[in-house]
Amino acid sequence: MIVVLTGGTGGAKLVQGLDHVVRPENLTVIVNTGDDIDWWGLHISPDVDSVLYALADALSAERGWGLENDSFRCLERMARLGQPTWFSLGDLDLATHLARTNLLRGGKSLSAVTAELAHRMGVRTQVLPMSDDRVATMIETPAGTLNFQEYFVHKRHQVEVRAVHFDGADQARPAPGVIEGIESAEAVILAPSNPVTSIGPILAVPGIRDALRRTSASVTAVSPIVGGAAVSGPAAVLMRRKGWPSTIAGVAQAYEDFLDVLIVDLADHADADHLREGDLHVLCANTIMKSLEDKQELARFTLHAALQASGAKV
Amino acid sequence: MIVVLTGGTGGAKLVQGLDHVVRPENLTVIVNTGDDIDWWGLHISPDVDSVLYALADALSAERGWGLENDSFRCLERMARLGQPTWFSLGDLDLATHLARTNLLRGGKSLSAVTAELAHRMGVRTQVLPMSDDRVATMIETPAGTLNFQEYFVHKRHQVEVRAVHFDGADQARPAPGVIEGIESAEAVILAPSNPVTSIGPILAVPGIRDALRRTSASVTAVSPIVGGAAVSGPAAVLMRRKGWPSTIAGVAQAYEDFLDVLIVDLADHADADHLREGDLHVLCANTIMKSLEDKQELARFTLHAALQASGAKV
Repeated sequence: MIVVLTGGTGGAKLVQGLDHVVRPENLTVIVNTGDDIDWWGLHISPDVDSVLYALADALSAERGWGLENDSFRCLERMARLGQPTWFSLGDLDLATHLARTNLLRGGKSLSAVTAELAHRMGVRTQVLPMSDDRVATMIETPAGTLNFQEYFVHKRHQVEVRAVHFDGADQARPAPGVIEGIESAEAVILAPSNPVTSIGPILAVPGIRDALRRTSASVTAVSPIVGGAAVSGPAAVLMRRKGWPSTIAGVAQAYEDFLDVLIVDLADHADADHLREGDLHVLCANTIMKSLEDKQELARFTLHAALQASGAKV
Repeated sequence: MIVVLTGGTGGAKLVQGLDHVVRPENLTVIVNTGDDIDWWGLHISPDVDSVLYALADALSAERGWGLENDSFRCLERMARLGQPTWFSLGDLDLATHLARTNLLRGGKSLSAVTAELAHRMGVRTQVLPMSDDRVATMIETPAGTLNFQEYFVHKRHQVEVRAVHFDGADQARPAPGVIEGIESAEAVILAPSNPVTSIGPILAVPGIRDALRRTSASVTAVSPIVGGAAVSGPAAVLMRRKGWPSTIAGVAQAYEDFLDVLIVDLADHADADHLREGDLHVLCANTIMKSLEDKQELARFTLHAALQASGAKV
């Protein structure tokens, strides 16, 4: 079993690539839910949805979120009715949120609902939210504390960040299958997602970080930092705020207590040499995924490196 | 002030007509909410919406419910996700339900939410739900008790009806403005809506029937029964179940304790003569409203008759 920890954007791309090179029954994806938001009274799980849509080959390539060929008629009407519209939901996408919210209100857990949605979308790969309990990534700014979507979407991450914390993480339990998946994996892969606000919330759920330290499987991360900057989003800024450099060295530092292999972009070839001093294996690849071929190629490379390292570790 | 009591379908047409012949500030519409349903976790008020859409000149003429030029992409996706879809919601229509549900969860009353939605749709006529409390029209059938939409939409009213009752009516209070509106009206009009399940729930809210008996204004009903049959829907069957004939005489009987004027269709001219024995004024008009002109013409006729009767009553 290959286990992937991921957020929504870059991570979903690698997950889609892996899904084409690993059999669905051999892949488990553990997804950040710290970005979840109540919006229009609906429970939105943006990262879970990006992963589901990517696995269904239906993620909008144009937007990088939501469903391809979606429309925004309901959203436009919501604006007319005086409702907030800074967080966009498409007409097709809305069905996911309506179904999720309704199933949750009916008493199902987030992981049960996610499994149901995956099944209905024809996704056979196991997709697990990191926790069935609510964990909310909160961003402290000079203007007050914002939830992640307020910071990321509404403010377009153009505000100073003083601190990041994960409300509810202390009391959260890993979703069923998360710890078992990591412990029994052949290889664990950390997708190229923001180490602070995508992978960070997953690691903040008690038990998950320990399982990564303890597992006999190798742990391989794909760097979301290329050439000293994030491929997308505010990763660089948030890493510096955590005291990590916004470089591949910072990524290594974020995961230093459990990381075996770090895959960095070819652009960071020179820096990679400096990282090779300890036990960490550092490999170079093209990590910029534009086409499905790019995703599959990086997935194949990552998988190969991860399985080799697991063999070496045992 | 002209006060109209109405359900959704035929009633909304007359309301639209009245809105073109009465100034918005002189018209108050009291709407049945017994048909309200929780659907996909949203609070749907079908009759309130039909009235709002009619007043906004945006009610789909083709369907008789929902918004014109709507699409059903979210609905189709909900089917894909295994969710029930026998109750259709359009993509534009969804915004109304999302906004209403969200505002209700925020603690606003149904009448406050209705006023907000009306304002946003450019509707200046006062639209009041009959009550801010939940009243549910329940239909007892051999196969069990159904809510009104299960009976009307899902079963297409093709099941035997044993009884109709209004859950919660005993404890419901009229929405703010309802009693005052009826008491101070120049004329009260009962739209051509189902006497059992559209006007019936309104009359079941304690205080409303008394206000109709007490008001110094005349009360005029437009018959929803033409030629011994309902213009649309199950009114005839439901009236017989209540022990009223499914004729204009049955309509007169349903409202006998407060009705001053009954407007019947030209097709019922002969029957109208028999009804003219007591105090009830019976007038004939074309009550089949196909075009906006039909609606306005019937509205003008009804208004004229109602105001004349109020003058005679005082």
